Amino acid sequence: MALLAGKTAHAENRAAWRARFADCRARSAALATPLLPEDQVVQSMPDVSPTKWHLAHVTWFWETFLLGPHLAGYRVFDPAYDYLFNSYYEAVGPRHPRPARGLLSRPGVAEIARYRDHVTQAMDRLIAGVDGMTFRELAPVIALGLAHEEQHQELILMDIKHVFAQNPLKPAYTAPAPHAARTAPPLEWRDFAGGLIEIGHEGDGFAFDNEGPRHKVWLEPFRLATRLVTNGEYLAFVADGGYRRPEFWLSDGWAAVNASGWEAPLYWQRPAGKIDGVDGWQEFTLSGIAPLDPASPVVHVSHYEADAFARWAGRRLPSEAEWETAAADLPVSGNFLDRGLLHPQGATSSADCDQVDSCPPHPALDKARLRLANPKQPSPPSGEEGRVRGAQAPRGEEEASVVSAASAPALLQMFGDCWEWTQSAYAPYPGFHAVAGAIGEYNGKFMSGQMVLKGGCAVTPAGHMRASYRNFFPAAARWCFGGIRLAEDG
Amino acid sequence: MALLAGKTAHAENRAAWRARFADCRARSAALATPLLPEDQVVQSMPDVSPTKWHLAHVTWFWETFLLGPHLAGYRVFDPAYDYLFNSYYEAVGPRHPRPARGLLSRPGVAEIARYRDHVTQAMDRLIAGVDGMTFRELAPVIALGLAHEEQHQELILMDIKHVFAQNPLKPAYTAPAPHAARTAPPLEWRDFAGGLIEIGHEGDGFAFDNEGPRHKVWLEPFRLATRLVTNGEYLAFVADGGYRRPEFWLSDGWAAVNASGWEAPLYWQRPAGKIDGVDGWQEFTLSGIAPLDPASPVVHVSHYEADAFARWAGRRLPSEAEWETAAADLPVSGNFLDRGLLHPQGATSSADCDQVDSCPPHPALDKARLRLANPKQPSPPSGEEGRVRGAQAPRGEEEASVVSAASAPALLQMFGDCWEWTQSAYAPYPGFHAVAGAIGEYNGKFMSGQMVLKGGCAVTPAGHMRASYRNFFPAAARWCFGGIRLAEDG
Amino acid sequence: MALLAGKTAHAENRAAWRARFADCRARSAALATPLLPEDQVVQSMPDVSPTKWHLAHVTWFWETFLLGPHLAGYRVFDPAYDYLFNSYYEAVGPRHPRPARGLLSRPGVAEIARYRDHVTQAMDRLIAGVDGMTFRELAPVIALGLAHEEQHQELILMDIKHVFAQNPLKPAYTAPAPHAARTAPPLEWRDFAGGLIEIGHEGDGFAFDNEGPRHKVWLEPFRLATRLVTNGEYLAFVADGGYRRPEFWLSDGWAAVNASGWEAPLYWQRPAGKIDGVDGWQEFTLSGIAPLDPASPVVHVSHYEADAFARWAGRRLPSEAEWETAAADLPVSGNFLDRGLLHPQGATSSADCDQVDSCPPHPALDKARLRLANPKQPSPPSGEEGRVRGAQAPRGEEEASVVSAASAPALLQMFGDCWEWTQSAYAPYPGFHAVAGAIGEYNGKFMSGQMVLKGGCAVTPAGHMRASYRNFFPAAARWCFGGIRLAEDG
Amino acid sequence: MALLAGKTAHAENRAAWRARFADCRARSAALATPLLPEDQVVQSMPDVSPTKWHLAHVTWFWETFLLGPHLAGYRVFDPAYDYLFNSYYEAVGPRHPRPARGLLSRPGVAEIARYRDHVTQAMDRLIAGVDGMTFRELAPVIALGLAHEEQHQELILMDIKHVFAQNPLKPAYTAPAPHAARTAPPLEWRDFAGGLIEIGHEGDGFAFDNEGPRHKVWLEPFRLATRLVTNGEYLAFVADGGYRRPEFWLSDGWAAVNASGWEAPLYWQRPAGKIDGVDGWQEFTLSGIAPLDPASPVVHVSHYEADAFARWAGRRLPSEAEWETAAADLPVSGNFLDRGLLHPQGATSSADCDQVDSCPPHPALDKARLRLANPKQPSPPSGEEGRVRGAQAPRGEEEASVVSAASAPALLQMFGDCWEWTQSAYAPYPGFHAVAGAIGEYNGKFMSGQMVLKGGCAVTPAGHMRASYRNFFPAAARWCFGGIRLAEDG
Repeated sequence: MALLAGKTAHAENRAAWRARFADCRARSAALATPLLPEDQVVQSMPDVSPTKWHLAHVTWFWETFLLGPHLAGYRVFDPAYDYLFNSYYEAVGPRHPRPARGLLSRPGVAEIARYRDHVTQAMDRLIAGVDGMTFRELAPVIALGLAHEEQHQELILMDIKHVFAQNPLKPAYTAPAPHAARTAPPLEWRDFAGGLIEIGHEGDGFAFDNEGPRHKVWLEPFRLATRLVTNGEYLAFVADGGYRRPEFWLSDGWAAVNASGWEAPLYWQRPAGKIDGVDGWQEFTLSGIAPLDPASPVVHVSHYEADAFARWAGRRLPSEAEWETAAADLPVSGNFLDRGLLHPQGATSSADCDQVDSCPPHPALDKARLRLANPKQPSPPSGEEGRVRGAQAPRGEEEASVVSAASAPALLQMFGDCWEWTQSAYAPYPGFHAVAGAIGEYNGKFMSGQMVLKGGCAVTPAGHMRASYRNFFPAAARWCFGGIRLAEDG
Repeated sequence: MALLAGKTAHAENRAAWRARFADCRARSAALATPLLPEDQVVQSMPDVSPTKWHLAHVTWFWETFLLGPHLAGYRVFDPAYDYLFNSYYEAVGPRHPRPARGLLSRPGVAEIARYRDHVTQAMDRLIAGVDGMTFRELAPVIALGLAHEEQHQELILMDIKHVFAQNPLKPAYTAPAPHAARTAPPLEWRDFAGGLIEIGHEGDGFAFDNEGPRHKVWLEPFRLATRLVTNGEYLAFVADGGYRRPEFWLSDGWAAVNASGWEAPLYWQRPAGKIDGVDGWQEFTLSGIAPLDPASPVVHVSHYEADAFARWAGRRLPSEAEWETAAADLPVSGNFLDRGLLHPQGATSSADCDQVDSCPPHPALDKARLRLANPKQPSPPSGEEGRVRGAQAPRGEEEASVVSAASAPALLQMFGDCWEWTQSAYAPYPGFHAVAGAIGEYNGKFMSGQMVLKGGCAVTPAGHMRASYRNFFPAAARWCFGGIRLAEDG
Repeated sequence: MALLAGKTAHAENRAAWRARFADCRARSAALATPLLPEDQVVQSMPDVSPTKWHLAHVTWFWETFLLGPHLAGYRVFDPAYDYLFNSYYEAVGPRHPRPARGLLSRPGVAEIARYRDHVTQAMDRLIAGVDGMTFRELAPVIALGLAHEEQHQELILMDIKHVFAQNPLKPAYTAPAPHAARTAPPLEWRDFAGGLIEIGHEGDGFAFDNEGPRHKVWLEPFRLATRLVTNGEYLAFVADGGYRRPEFWLSDGWAAVNASGWEAPLYWQRPAGKIDGVDGWQEFTLSGIAPLDPASPVVHVSHYEADAFARWAGRRLPSEAEWETAAADLPVSGNFLDRGLLHPQGATSSADCDQVDSCPPHPALDKARLRLANPKQPSPPSGEEGRVRGAQAPRGEEEASVVSAASAPALLQMFGDCWEWTQSAYAPYPGFHAVAGAIGEYNGKFMSGQMVLKGGCAVTPAGHMRASYRNFFPAAARWCFGGIRLAEDG
Repeated sequence: MALLAGKTAHAENRAAWRARFADCRARSAALATPLLPEDQVVQSMPDVSPTKWHLAHVTWFWETFLLGPHLAGYRVFDPAYDYLFNSYYEAVGPRHPRPARGLLSRPGVAEIARYRDHVTQAMDRLIAGVDGMTFRELAPVIALGLAHEEQHQELILMDIKHVFAQNPLKPAYTAPAPHAARTAPPLEWRDFAGGLIEIGHEGDGFAFDNEGPRHKVWLEPFRLATRLVTNGEYLAFVADGGYRRPEFWLSDGWAAVNASGWEAPLYWQRPAGKIDGVDGWQEFTLSGIAPLDPASPVVHVSHYEADAFARWAGRRLPSEAEWETAAADLPVSGNFLDRGLLHPQGATSSADCDQVDSCPPHPALDKARLRLANPKQPSPPSGEEGRVRGAQAPRGEEEASVVSAASAPALLQMFGDCWEWTQSAYAPYPGFHAVAGAIGEYNGKFMSGQMVLKGGCAVTPAGHMRASYRNFFPAAARWCFGGIRLAEDG
C-alpha cells in the first residue's frame, strides 16, 4: 500500500497491536482530563478545533475506514456523525464547515465519550478477531489510524493553548514544571559536505505517503546551528527593530506583520508598566503565564518571523533535505509529550549531552569546524542598533575556539522542543502519487502554499517522529510550536 | 431619577422587594437548567451571547451599580469580571470584545453559579438592611436591575435558539407543547380616528428612560389588522416570488436579501426531496423541528421582510405611535414566557377572546368598520403568481361583512407572541435626555440605525411589558422573534 | 402625477421650457470643463461615481423615460447604455454594479459628449414639437428630469472633490476665491413656539414625491442657532478630546470613529511638523489646500460627528420639522453653486444681512429672545478640558445681551453653504405612496437607514432648493457637504 | 555585481546602448498609442496597474537609480513622483498604496509623457557622456532598467486586457489578426534521461539575480509533452465536470474554485442561449471577443487549474528544472510581442517546424520515444463522462505511431505563446543572496507563496526571454497568460 513504506504489520502479534491501540486511545482521553466540558467546545480561530471535536473526529476515522467496511455487523453509533466529524475528505461526502466547529455544543463531552467507548471496543474486537490474511491488509490502515490519532493528540494541545490564550484569565492547562535556571550552551556550527544524498523514508517502519519515494538530492556544503535560537537571541532581534524594518522580511511576511500588528512571537506579552527588556516580557504557556526564559528556545513564530530572524542574523533557514540529512542518523529522542513539560526547554550543552539527549558525534560529519566570527553574508548595518545585535547575537561566536574534527559539536534539540521551520515549500517528492480514494486525500492535496517543518515538538507524542517526517503549515501560522534553527552555506 | 417615570419604590415593603428580586434571580438560573455546560459557552454570531455570559453579566450589573457603591464591606467576587462581563458601558472602563465572548470557556458554569450566589445573597442583605432614605434612592436602580435581568432572560432564549439552530442535530431546548390544529381567525381591520394624541410612559410604574417624556403626536386616521400575519399568509408571499422581486423591498432590504441569500424566514427549512408547499416547510423552534403551522404567526423575519410583505399585501407597517395608541388601554396579557410555550401561537378568534386573551372592545374605538375588499394601494400584479396571492392573502377580505361599530373587531396578539416591527426608527422622544454617567448609556446611545418593535413575544417575561415599551433592533435582525402586524391609512 | 405637487407645467410656454432644459444641460457640461478626461473616469469609493458616468446617466434618464416612450422615431444612441448607465432602477432591468463604475474607461469622454448632444437635440425636438395635451402629461416628467440632472450636478462636484482628495498632489478643481478675513457673528438663538404645524410641500411648484403629502406635526417649543457651527467652534471640540471621549457619541458613531480612525472632519489635514491649533490645520477644498478658516462653517462631518458635537455643546440637532418650520418663510437664497465659490462661507452678521443673504426678520417668530448663558442641559464636565470649551464654545453666549423681541436675531445660512444634518431619520410622510413603475423607485425605496439633511450647500444649483426639500444620506457619510446647526428645547 | 551574471556591458559601444535604450523607451510609449487617456487610468484589481502608472514607474526607476545618483546637475522632474511611482522598494521610502493606484487621475497622460521625455533625454545624455570607468559600473544597472521596462511592457498588455474585460462593451486593444483555421498537431512525448544536471544562468548575457547561482540538481527520468494543452483538450476537462470534482484539485485550489465561482478559464464566456460545446464558447482577447479556437493553447488558467487539468489527464506539471533542462539548448524564438498577435497561437506541427519556430531535434535528447496509449497513472473513472474524455483528450495518443529515436518529436511552443506553469515553488537557488539596498528588493523578497512560470508569452518582448528566466505568480493568478504543458515520470 502506497501509504506505507515497508512492512509495518507483524500480523502475528495481535496482542501488541491491541495494546498499542488501547494505549493510543487512552492517551487521547487523558489529554482532556484537565479540561472542563466548557473548554472542549471553543474554537478560537478557523485553524483551531474544539477538543471534543478532535476526540470525535479520530473516532470517526476508525469507524469510517475500518469498522464500517471490515467489522461484520458493526452498528454505526450515529449516522449524523459522518457529517459532523469528517474533517476534509471530499470523497466521503459533505461535511460541517470547518470554521463552524465551535458552534456545536452537541454532542456533548459525555456523549462523545460514549462514542469513543463504542468504537474502541469494536476496534478491539476487529483487531483481535479478524482472520490473518485480512489483518495483513488492514494493518497498514490501523497503523495510519494510530498515526492520525497521534497527530490529533498534538493538535489538542496546540489548540487548547490558543483557546486559553484568548482568555484574559489566562488559565493553565497543567501545573508549571520546576524550572532550573540555566544558560544556553554556545551556538556552534556543524559542517556538512553535501553531495548527492538521498532523503525520504526507507525501511520497515510506518511512514506517511508524503515521506516517499526515497530519492536523490544534490546538496552544496552547508552548516547547521547546533541548537535552536533562544528567546534571548530573538529578543535582540526584537530590540533591534526587527518588526519595524522591512529589509529583513519576505514581502508576504512584511504584509503579515503590518496587517496583523505582530510585534513579538504569538504568546509573548509585556504587562503594562514593565520595563522593556528580558525582565519585562512574559510568555503564555500551557502552565500559564511565566517570565520569558532567555535560555529557552523561541517558539510560536511563523515561517516569516523565522526567515526574518535568520536574515537579520546573516544566516538562513535550512532546507528540508539539509535538515533530514543531518538528522538521519541521530536517535529520535528529545523533549516530547511523554516528558509532560509541554513547552520547549533550554538545550543542554553537549558536555551533558549523552545523559539527556543521547547525542553522539554525528556520523555523517566529515569536515566539522566551528563557525568563526566573520559570517559570510553580514547583515545590513543598522546604526546604533547594530551595536546591540553585534554584542548579543548570535551568541556562540564570541565564545568560539578552534576545535578538532574529532570534537565536532553535537546537534542538540533536533527532535522535540520546537517544530523547525525549513525554507522548503511542501511539495511532492519525485514519483509521488497519492493513493486513490478518500485516504489518498490525507497529504497530497495540501501540497500547495505551505512550508515544511521537521523534528516534532514538546507536545508531539513520543514515538510519532522520525527524520523523514514532513509536517507542513502555512507560512503565517504561529500557533503550531514553530521554532528556528539557523543554517548557512558551507 | 430620570430613568424612571413616577414612584416605583414603595420603600416600606422590603419583603416584597426581596421576594421579587429572589424570583427574578431564580428564573434566570432556571432558564439554564435544560442546558449542558457545553451549550452555555457558544456564541453563534456577534449579536448572540453565551448563556453563561448572560448569567454573569446581569450579576455584574448588580455588583457594579448596587453592591460596590452601596453595600458596606462588600467584597468583589473577582476583579477580573469587571473586564469580562461589562457589556457596553464605556464609562465603566474597557471590556472584553463582544464578538469574542464565545472564546471564554472560563469562568465555567459552576464558577458563575458561585458568583451568582455570592451576589444574590449580598443583594438580599442590601435590600433588607439599608436604611429607608437610602433605599428610596436605590429602589429605582434596583427596579432597573430587575428589568435588565428580565431583558437578558429573553435574550438567553433568543440566543440559545440561534445556537441550536446552527447545529445539524437541531437539539430541542424543551419538549414540544401539545399542538391543537387550529384555523387562524379572519384578518380584520380596526379603525382609529387619529388626532392629537399622547404617547410615552406615564404613571407610577417603572419604565426605561427611553419611554419618556410623554408627549403629543398628531396621527392621521389609520387601521390596524386585528391579528398577526400567519405563516400561511407569508408563505403566499414566498410562493409569489416575494424574495425575488425587488419592487417590494427597501433598497437596503433588497441588498440584504441578495447578500445573505434570504429565501424565507430565519428558521424555516425545506428538507431535500419535499415538495414545495405548506407541507414541505418545517420550522425550527425551541422544541426542535416542527412542521410549519399555517395558522401560527410568522416569526423571525427582519424589518425588511416585514416591510416587503406589507408592501406586497398593499398595506404598510404601523408607526410606533399608532401601535401604542391602539394598545394603550388593552390589558397586558398574552403568550409570554410564563406560559412556557416559547413560540408564537395562532390567534384565538375574538369569539373566544375573553377566555384566552381578555380582549374587550377597544375603548379608543370610534369609527370601527371592517376593511372592505378594495385596498387603497393595490400591489403590482404579477401574472400567474398574482392568482396565488389573490386567493390566499390577506385572508380577512373575502370573509368581510358589514358589521356595526358595536361589534368592532378586537385586536388580538398585541402583547406576547411576536415582537411587532413598526415603521418607526428608534429615536429620542422630544425632551429626552439621558442621565449622566454609566447608567445613562443604557438606551440613549443606541438611538441610531435601529427600528422600534412593540408588544413583547413568547419568550418575554410576563410583567416585563407595557404599551410604552420600546424595543429596538437593526432592520436586518432576524433572530429576535420579530413578527408582522399590518396597518393602513384610514 | 404623484411625483409633483401642484401644476408644474405652464404648457403654453414651450420656449421657457426649452431654455430651461438647454441651460440645465449646458451647466452639466460646463462642470466638466476644468477636468481632464483622466479625472472623469475615477471612482474613489462605491458612493462616488465618475464624472463621465454622471454625465451619461442623466442623459440615459431623458432617453429612457422621455425619448424612448414619447418621441416618435427616436433612435436609441447605443442599446448597451441601458445596462451601463442605469443607476438603480430595478424595474428597468439589470445594470452595471455600482462599485464597478470606475472600471469603465469606455465609452470615453468624447463619446459621451456625442451621446449628450444626440439626446439634448432630441429632447429639444420633443419639447418643441409634441402636442399640447401630451406635453401637459410629459411636463412633470421633464421637471423631474431637470431636478434629477441638477442633483447630479451637485454630485459631480461632491464626487470629484473626493477623487482629488485621494491624490497626494491635491489638485484644485478651480482657482481660489479671494478671501476676506472675517469674524463669525455671535451664535445667537431664535425661539419658536411650536404647536400643531404643517410641513411638506404645497403649492404649484415642482417637488419630489418624498416631500409630500403635506401633513400636521406637533412641535414642542424649540430654539435654533442663528448660524452654522464654525471651524473654530468645532476645533474646540476636537481639542477637548471630542474624538476620544465615548460619552458624546451614539454607539454606532463611536464604532465608526474607531473603525475608521476619524480624528477630524473628512478633509482636514495637519501637515507634519505643524503645531496643534488653528494655524496647524488645513482644509482641502475644490480650490486645493487652504488654511482652515475659523470663521467658516465646519463642513464634511457625518451625522455622528454633528450629533456628538451637539452633545458636547449641551445642545442637540434640530428635527426636520423644526428646521422646515423655521425655514418656511425665508427667501431661498444663499451661497449656492451659482456664486462659484464651491465652499461654505462665514456667515454675514445680521446687520449686513439684507445686502448679502436677504434675511428679513423671521415672520413666524413669536417669542424671540436670545439664548442666555445658562443652557438647560449642561454638558458633562471634563476636568481641565472643560475650561477650554467653556471659554470658546459656543461663542455667541458671552456676547449675548438682552434684546427686544422686535430685534429677534435673523437665521443666517439656512440655505446654501452646508447641508444641515437633522436628527430625523428619513421616513415616509403619513400617506406617502411611491408611484408605480420605475420612476416610483426614485425616493421611496431609500426610506431606511438614512438621515435627513436640509437647505442645500455651496455646490447645489441655485433654484434647486426649497424648505420642504428632503436630502438623505447614511449617518456615516462625510463627503456630502454636511454641516451643523444647533437646536435646543424651548 | 550580483544582479548580473557575466559581463553585460560592452562599454565601448555607447551608440548601441543608446539605440537599445531609445528603442525600449519608444516601445513602451507605442504600447499606449491605441488607448484613450481614460483607459490609462483604470485599475481593475489590486494586481493590475493603470497604463500611465506603468509608464511613469519605469521612468521613476531610471530617475531614482541612475539619473539622481549619477547624472551631475540632474533636475528631478517632480519630487512628489518618488511617492507616487515607487512600486515596492521599502528602502526608498513610503509609497502610494498599490490598490489605490487607480484613484490617481493626475498626473495625466500628457504630463507623464513630458516626464518620460525629460528622463529619456537625460538618460541619453548620461549614457553618451559618462566616463568609461563609471559607465562600466552603470551598465549593469542600465541593463537591469531595460529588463525592468520590458517587464512592464508585458504588464501593460496583461493589465489593459483585464481592464477591458471588465467592460460590458468588451473593447478591443487591436484589430484581430487574420486567423487560419488549423488543427493542433498530435500531443507527443519527448523523453529525458535526467541525472545530475545544472540549471541557472551562465554566460555573458544579462540575467536577473534570481536566475543564479547556477547549481546542480538531480533529476529522475521524465517526459515532456511536445506542445501546450489546447482549448479543445481543456474543454474536455470542463465538460467532464472538471470544475465540480474535488478529486482533481489541490485543497487551496478547490477552495479558490468555490470561493470565486470558477467554471472555465478567466476570459472564456458563453453567451446566453448558446449551446454547450466548442461552438458555444467565446474568448475575450486583446482583439475583442472571438470564438474559442479548439486548436489554440488554453491560456489564462491559474496554477490550480493547470495542476487539476494535469491530474485529470493522468499527468503532472513539469518542475522548473525539468523545463529548463529541456529548453536549455533550444533557440529562444516563438510567438512573442514583436509578432503583434498578442494571443497564443496553435502549434505548428514539427513538419513545419523550421519555417515557423526553428525547432531542430533536441540536442539533449537521449532516449526519445513516443508516449503510448496507456498512461501510468490513469485518472479516476467518472462514469459516463469518462467516455467523453477518453474520446477527446489527450488527442495525440490515438494518432501516435512508432517512430525511431532519430525522429524524436520536437518540443513546440516552449518559448512564447503562454507562460508555462511549473510545479515548482519560487524559492532561492542554493547560494542565492540578494544584493544590499533597494535594488536587492527586486526579486528576493518575493520568494514565498508563488509558483515559477517559464518561457514567456505572446505579450513578452522578444529578446527578453531565456531558458533560465524565472517568472513567478501566486497559484491563483489568472490574468498573467498562464498555460499548460504536461509532464510525466519517465
